[in-house]
Amino acid sequence: MSENRIQLAHGSGGQLSRELIEGLFLEYFGNPILDELEDAAVFHPPNSLRRGLETGDLQLAVSTDSYVITPPFFSGGDIGKLAVCGTVNDLAMRGAQPLYMSVGFILEEGLPLRDLERIVRSMAQIAAQVGLEIVAGDTKVVNRGGADRIFINTAGIGLVPAGVELSARKVEVGDAVLVSGTLGDHGMAIMIQREGLAFESELKSDCAPLNGLVAQLLAAAPRTHCLRDPTRGGLATALNEIARQAGLGIEIQEMSIPVRNEVRAACELLGLDPLYVANEGKLVAAVAADGAPLAMAAMRDHPLGKEAAIIGSVTEEHPGRVVVRTPLGVRRILDMLVGEQLPRIC
Amino acid sequence: MSENRIQLAHGSGGQLSRELIEGLFLEYFGNPILDELEDAAVFHPPNSLRRGLETGDLQLAVSTDSYVITPPFFSGGDIGKLAVCGTVNDLAMRGAQPLYMSVGFILEEGLPLRDLERIVRSMAQIAAQVGLEIVAGDTKVVNRGGADRIFINTAGIGLVPAGVELSARKVEVGDAVLVSGTLGDHGMAIMIQREGLAFESELKSDCAPLNGLVAQLLAAAPRTHCLRDPTRGGLATALNEIARQAGLGIEIQEMSIPVRNEVRAACELLGLDPLYVANEGKLVAAVAADGAPLAMAAMRDHPLGKEAAIIGSVTEEHPGRVVVRTPLGVRRILDMLVGEQLPRIC
Repeated sequence: MSENRIQLAHGSGGQLSRELIEGLFLEYFGNPILDELEDAAVFHPPNSLRRGLETGDLQLAVSTDSYVITPPFFSGGDIGKLAVCGTVNDLAMRGAQPLYMSVGFILEEGLPLRDLERIVRSMAQIAAQVGLEIVAGDTKVVNRGGADRIFINTAGIGLVPAGVELSARKVEVGDAVLVSGTLGDHGMAIMIQREGLAFESELKSDCAPLNGLVAQLLAAAPRTHCLRDPTRGGLATALNEIARQAGLGIEIQEMSIPVRNEVRAACELLGLDPLYVANEGKLVAAVAADGAPLAMAAMRDHPLGKEAAIIGSVTEEHPGRVVVRTPLGVRRILDMLVGEQLPRIC
Repeated sequence: MSENRIQLAHGSGGQLSRELIEGLFLEYFGNPILDELEDAAVFHPPNSLRRGLETGDLQLAVSTDSYVITPPFFSGGDIGKLAVCGTVNDLAMRGAQPLYMSVGFILEEGLPLRDLERIVRSMAQIAAQVGLEIVAGDTKVVNRGGADRIFINTAGIGLVPAGVELSARKVEVGDAVLVSGTLGDHGMAIMIQREGLAFESELKSDCAPLNGLVAQLLAAAPRTHCLRDPTRGGLATALNEIARQAGLGIEIQEMSIPVRNEVRAACELLGLDPLYVANEGKLVAAVAADGAPLAMAAMRDHPLGKEAAIIGSVTEEHPGRVVVRTPLGVRRILDMLVGEQLPRIC
């Protein structure tokens, strides 16, 4: 039965999401811009409308995301903060300066207005902080039971400075693979809250806007080739996407991957793998090997990159595959997420 | 109780929508671009990122909308066609050429894949027809009962040609007020289907992309000052918005407003006023009086404007108000929509 119906895993960011994207969306919507499947689309506006303009400089970046997280308020943020950070981060992963955003609210009849106000206030705060202007909006209300409290959709528009080109296609053999900090904080903070687990130290979502960190990274290491934010599907899925799109292999050292003790403990308890858990304030970078030390220094010098780490490198071997080397020296393949462990995590 | 909670009328496009926009969204998100409250935002990208460009020409237009219509398939279209047409039309109302679109799907677990495919196919058809490229997408799946089948959010990006400026602020005393065709077709087609009413001739949604009609209109009547598509809240709400933002009055002749007999009959049966019923393939225009005959000819020459009509004019009297003159010569004030008659009509 479920074969011909939408399953939760179609929204996981993993294998079934990919099948839906490739088998349906690209089939009907495909074009050279969309087909790249990066965090944000980057393209030049068409020549016909830029009569007399020197056009080499101007590249638009566009991204969109819907946010359906439950609960809408969580330790370290809320659905509004998440929506703005997610939009900023998708643009930042292409090196774009985030400039404009549209916001669409789908509200369930009966939602307390004070909840909506709290969410709107936190959106406004992050937007002001990163210099993002909300230029267009829409609100729909559905009957009680027709939606779960609040969904937010955003589209982000940014401009990519001349000379900046970040893409999985730029990744090269020998590139160092870096992460900007500990993994799994967002997903496990939500899960701990949902499951009512008590841990001694309160784990918070890492939800944060990464545009400042990216600017600092690109200034220090201009040969940064590709950035991704490992949201749904976690680090494992982001690395698999890069490997697949680059047509190269990635090998990472399990010992080098920073994971908080609370995240590790909660994952063990719930039977989850932190490498598949969503992050909302972290990035993965592929940087030319000789630029890696400067990239590390630049990230660690930023409040959001203090726990940055080099976790592996890009290889010619096993193209399209990600391999993890364990502390005992065993190599295992790290697949894309299959199924859905954490529905409605973002 | 309901005072402090979201009501269906907050999404009606009418009075309560306006209160939410002015009292909450503009309060927190307000900026000169958003504050205009037109169908799409129009603005220049910031100078800092356009080094060496002749910038006078390039204006971006951005709009967003969420679609939550029930049922998702209806006579004359489906939620996918509606989403693309709605996006195209919001951009076209500012004179923008629709170029790019983002699409966010929120799907309920269990949605038949063939329904999704049918919707995606119809989006692709309209997008191809108007030359719109879908450049970014996102899919979220929520648990059964967490959403009603399918919601779609789109953001549209267009470019406004040099010299084109359509806005309620441009409206002048004496402007003719035109509509491009019969009113209320979309809303009543949905209502007839929902209520299971049988009428002899099948009424269809007017859902259609208006960019071609607008191009023809602007070529013939360059002194077209303002365009709006009377969706949620209908003609009455669109006219009230124009009057309010222009700081002028509008007077319309009830007899001149084209309404199909089936729409009139269904409205009578259901106790609705066709002037408040949503349209998805119609526009209202304020055109300099001497250009009105050419505007009419241009619209009637287009398949989507065959029943265009001049319905009234802009007045210095009763600024911010819309007045209807009935066949008996009685003048009554036509208010914005209060409450919500037709939830989830788009």
